[in-house]
Amino acid sequence: MSRKGIMRIVAVGANAAGLRAAARAKRLLPDAAVTVIDRGKFISYGACGMPYLVSGDIETADKLRETAYGVIRDPDFFRKAKGLEVVVQTEVERIDRDARKVVCKSLLTGETKEYLYDKLILATGAIPIVPPGIAGNGPRVSTFRILEDAMALRKSLQSGQIGKVGLVGAGPIGCELAEAFTAMWGAKAVLFDAAPTLLPAMLDPEMARAVEAYMKGEGVEIHTNCPLQGVVESNAGVTLKTPKGDFAVDHVIIAIGVKPDSTLAAGCGLKIGKTGGIVVDERMTTSDPNIFAAGDCVELRHLVSEKPVVLPLGSLANRAGRVIGSNLGGGDERFGPVAGSGALKVFDMNISSTGLTTKAAEDAGFDVGAAWGSFTDRADYYPGSENLHLKLLYDRKTTRLLGLQGYSKGEVVKRVDVFASLLRQGGTLEDLLDAEFAYAPPFAPAVDPLYSIACTARNELREGIQSLPPDADLDDRCIVDVRRTGEVFDRPLPEKDTLNVPFEEFRVNCGQVPKDKAVVCICSKGVRSSEAARVLKERGCADVKYVGGGSLMKLAQRERQ
Amino acid sequence: MSRKGIMRIVAVGANAAGLRAAARAKRLLPDAAVTVIDRGKFISYGACGMPYLVSGDIETADKLRETAYGVIRDPDFFRKAKGLEVVVQTEVERIDRDARKVVCKSLLTGETKEYLYDKLILATGAIPIVPPGIAGNGPRVSTFRILEDAMALRKSLQSGQIGKVGLVGAGPIGCELAEAFTAMWGAKAVLFDAAPTLLPAMLDPEMARAVEAYMKGEGVEIHTNCPLQGVVESNAGVTLKTPKGDFAVDHVIIAIGVKPDSTLAAGCGLKIGKTGGIVVDERMTTSDPNIFAAGDCVELRHLVSEKPVVLPLGSLANRAGRVIGSNLGGGDERFGPVAGSGALKVFDMNISSTGLTTKAAEDAGFDVGAAWGSFTDRADYYPGSENLHLKLLYDRKTTRLLGLQGYSKGEVVKRVDVFASLLRQGGTLEDLLDAEFAYAPPFAPAVDPLYSIACTARNELREGIQSLPPDADLDDRCIVDVRRTGEVFDRPLPEKDTLNVPFEEFRVNCGQVPKDKAVVCICSKGVRSSEAARVLKERGCADVKYVGGGSLMKLAQRERQ
Repeated sequence: MSRKGIMRIVAVGANAAGLRAAARAKRLLPDAAVTVIDRGKFISYGACGMPYLVSGDIETADKLRETAYGVIRDPDFFRKAKGLEVVVQTEVERIDRDARKVVCKSLLTGETKEYLYDKLILATGAIPIVPPGIAGNGPRVSTFRILEDAMALRKSLQSGQIGKVGLVGAGPIGCELAEAFTAMWGAKAVLFDAAPTLLPAMLDPEMARAVEAYMKGEGVEIHTNCPLQGVVESNAGVTLKTPKGDFAVDHVIIAIGVKPDSTLAAGCGLKIGKTGGIVVDERMTTSDPNIFAAGDCVELRHLVSEKPVVLPLGSLANRAGRVIGSNLGGGDERFGPVAGSGALKVFDMNISSTGLTTKAAEDAGFDVGAAWGSFTDRADYYPGSENLHLKLLYDRKTTRLLGLQGYSKGEVVKRVDVFASLLRQGGTLEDLLDAEFAYAPPFAPAVDPLYSIACTARNELREGIQSLPPDADLDDRCIVDVRRTGEVFDRPLPEKDTLNVPFEEFRVNCGQVPKDKAVVCICSKGVRSSEAARVLKERGCADVKYVGGGSLMKLAQRERQ
Repeated sequence: MSRKGIMRIVAVGANAAGLRAAARAKRLLPDAAVTVIDRGKFISYGACGMPYLVSGDIETADKLRETAYGVIRDPDFFRKAKGLEVVVQTEVERIDRDARKVVCKSLLTGETKEYLYDKLILATGAIPIVPPGIAGNGPRVSTFRILEDAMALRKSLQSGQIGKVGLVGAGPIGCELAEAFTAMWGAKAVLFDAAPTLLPAMLDPEMARAVEAYMKGEGVEIHTNCPLQGVVESNAGVTLKTPKGDFAVDHVIIAIGVKPDSTLAAGCGLKIGKTGGIVVDERMTTSDPNIFAAGDCVELRHLVSEKPVVLPLGSLANRAGRVIGSNLGGGDERFGPVAGSGALKVFDMNISSTGLTTKAAEDAGFDVGAAWGSFTDRADYYPGSENLHLKLLYDRKTTRLLGLQGYSKGEVVKRVDVFASLLRQGGTLEDLLDAEFAYAPPFAPAVDPLYSIACTARNELREGIQSLPPDADLDDRCIVDVRRTGEVFDRPLPEKDTLNVPFEEFRVNCGQVPKDKAVVCICSKGVRSSEAARVLKERGCADVKYVGGGSLMKLAQRERQ
C-alpha cells in the first residue's frame, strides 16, 4: 500500500488481458491507483481483426481501436471513462520483486521511470517466431504482430507495391492473409509451411487437404513440406529460399506462429513452463503471490490432454483478465483448463475445431476412434443450405469425446461451440446424443449433424459398421457406389472399376455385390453407404466398409469445392 | 413372434418418430417384419418446412418429400432401400393389446385389415387445437397440419385468391405464416392471439413485444388479447368475430397449437398423462411393455421444471424414434428430459429460446433472477455484424441457469444451443463463465455475448449493480443517459427530462448527477450504463439502477428495428 493506504496495481500490457484485469480491479476497488504500461503506441485494439484491415473489409485502423459506439480507446478514454492511468510507448525493462517496483524506459524520451506496485499483472503477450538467421523486420520482410504491421501492409497494397506476397506459415493468420491479398487486392499469394498440411494445430491432414484444395481453387499457391531456409532482399523484391527452389515475391510475411513473451517474468525469477509460458495457477497467480499473469504470455492446461499448452487467443485472454481483476477485488475466481476452440474464415469457407487433433490425442495416450460425416448445415430443402463436413474424435475405451473439426461454407462454429461445452464436462458419445438443438429449417436440419456424427461413431464402435477415412486408398477393394446414376455421372470417382448399385433400390439389387471380396461402399455423404455396408454385412459379406464423409469429403481432397 | 419365429414390428405413423424407430429396428433386426401404417397420402415429409412451401421459398411440395439426393420418400423407397413395408391412407381404428393386433381400415377402399405385432410403436403425432364451436376445415377456414394444407394455401396464393389472411394463434407457425403471406405474396396478414403477447411459450412479454413491433414494421397487423369467438364464412370471404370487433378476410388459418393425438393409446387403455400425452419411461416404453411411443403424441419431462410437458418438435421426435429402434434391437438407450429449445425466423429476425420462461420458472418454484443485454453477434467492427438481444434467467439462490431467450437479425441460435447444453448438466452462471467459444471476428466478438450476460447477472447478484427491465417505467427516476450526444440525438428516449453525461468522460463529469434522488442510467446496450451505475453507487448515490439491454431493447418495445 502507499502511505495513504491506497492499493497500487500495475499492469504490463494494454490489450485484452491487461486492460480487462485492470478495469475490473478498478471497478471493484474504486480507491485503487491502477496503472497500465504498454510499449506500443496503440492499445486496446482488435488484433484478430488485423487481417480484415489488410483486406479492406475494415476501412480504417481506427475501427479496430474504437468502442462499438465510436470512441477511440486511447489513454484519455481509459482515464476519463475507466479511471485507469495508461502509459504508452514505454518499455518495462525489469521487475524488482523485492522492492515491488517495475523499472520502465520511455521509448520517446529515453527517460527511466519506476512504478511501485502492491499487485502486478503481467500481460506481456507473445512475440512472432522467426526462423533462425532471418531478420523479420526488413522493408520487404515483416512479421504480423502489431497494428502498425497491418497498417503498413494495407498502405503497400493500396499503392500497388505488392503484386505477389510470400506468406511463411499456414496457420490461421497465414490463411486469413492469403485471402486478404487475393480476394480483395488481386495479389498473388504464395503460402509456405514446413508441415505436410495446413493449420496443423486445428485440423487432421485429410481435413486440411480439403481446405488446401479449396484455397488453391481460389488462386492461392501453396507449398507444404517446404520450410523457409532464407530470404534475400533487394531493391526489386525479395527471394524466398526453400528446398523446392527460389521464389521471387514483392514482400514476405513471417507468420509461423508466436511464442509467449515471458522475458520480463523470467528476468525476475518467476516460474516459466516448458512451453515457454509463465506458469500460473487457476487464480492466474504466478509463482509470486503478488504477481498475476494472463493472455498470450502464460501457460494453460489443456482440458482433454491435461498437458500444458500455450493458446494465444483473444477470447481466453479476456476471460482470464476478468479472473485476475475479480481476484484482486477480493473474489476467488478460477480460470479452468481450456479446450482450445478455434475458428477462421478463408474466402467463403468457415473452418473450426476444438479439443485435440488425432496426433495430439494419440500423444496423450487415448485409443482414438474417428468418425467422418458430410451433412447440410440447415434443412437440406431450405434455400441457401450448405454442406458441412465434420470429423469427430473419441476414445474407443470410454467413448469420451476428444475433438471435433469441421469445414463448411455455412454454419460450423455452432457445432464446435456445443461440442466444446460437452468437452468441459468430460462428455461422451452418449452425451452428444442427448444434446438438444433449437430446430427450424433456416438454422439446422431436424437431426443435427452433431447428433448424426455421434450415431456414426457408435455404429462403428458398437455395431461394427466400419468406415475408411475419406482419403483412404480404395484400389484394393471392390468399390460399390450407391449414389444415383446421375450423381455418379456428375461427380465421378477417380477409381476406374466401380459397381453402381443405387441406394434407393439397394435391398433389391445388392445381390450383385461379391461376398468373397473386400468391399467398400461409397455415397455422397456417408449415410447411404453406411446403411448399404450394414446390409451387405448382414447378407454375409465378410469384409465391408464405407467411405466416411462420402464422395464429398473424398473428392474435396483434390478438387475445387 | 410369427410362426416362423420372425419378430413382427408395427409402427403407427410414418413421419419422424415412427419411421426413424422402424428403420433403426429393421437395421438392427434384419429378419424382423416391420410395417408402418399411416392415414396420410404423403409420408416422411419435412413438416417444419411447410411455411416455406407456402411462401414459395421452397418451390414444390416434392422438395419436402425428397431425400437430399433427390429420391421421393414414398412406400416404394422405404421398401427397396430400407426394407420396411409402409401402408398409407390407412387408418388404425383400434389396438387389441390382448391379441397384439392393430385393426385398420383403408381410407381408399373401406376395407378392414389387421396386423399382428410383437412390438408396437405409436407415433400418432398431434392434432390442431380448434376453438370450441368453430369448424377448422371449411373452404375458407383451415388448420395447418398436413402437407395438403400447405399445398392448398400455396395454390390459393398463386391464383390470387387470398389478398388478406387471418392467422389465429401467434405461435411459431402463425408468425412464420405471417411472413410467408406478407413477404412473398404481398398479402395482408392479420395475426390474432388470446394471450397478451406473441410466442408466449418461448418469450417473456418484453422480448415478445420487441418481436411484435418488428413484425408490425414489416406490415403485419397484430391483435393480442384477442381470442377468436367465431367465424362466419360466405362466398365472398370469411369474418372473424373477436372482442375487438369483426375482421373480414379471404381466408382464416387456425394455428393456436396442437395437442397429442393419443386417442388410439387411450382407447386401448394405455396410461395418458395430464398433458394429454401418452406416458412413457426413458426407454420410450408406454404402460404396456410391448408398446413404445414417441413424437408429438407423448408426454416428456422438462429438464429444468421437472414437470410433464408436451413438446411437438421434429428434432425430439427423431431422437426419440432412434431410442425406440435401438431398444427394439436389444439396446438399452434412454431419452432424457428435454430443455425445450426452439427457434424460428420471421422476416429477417431470428428468434430462439431454451429452458423456462419467467412465468414457467416462477411456477416451478425458482427464485428467478433476470439479466438483459444487447450485444453484437460478431466482432462489432466486422462487416455485417448484427445486434443480438438476450435475456438470461437464473435462480438467485443457487445461480442455476433456468432459461435463455434472444432475438437478432444475426446469430442467436448458437448461443441458445450452447446454453441448452449447460442446462442439461444443471449448469450455473459460473459454468457459463467457463464456456469456451471458437473465436474469430466473422463468428463472434472476442468476449461472447453469453459470457457477457453471465457477468451482467453476477454483477447484479454478487455486487448489487441492479438493472431494470427494458420495458420499465422510468418516469419516477432521474434518467442519466450516458450515450454520446450524437446517439441521443439519433435515437432519443421517449422520456422528456434526461441528463446526458456521456460515458467516455463519465468519471470526470458525473458530479452533476444528484445523489439524493432515485437514478437510472441508460446507454445503448446496457454495458456503459451498468458501469456508470457502479460509479454513481461508489460515489454515494443511494438508489441507482440501469436499463438492462439499453435503449436498443427499450426502444424495440415500440419502434421498428
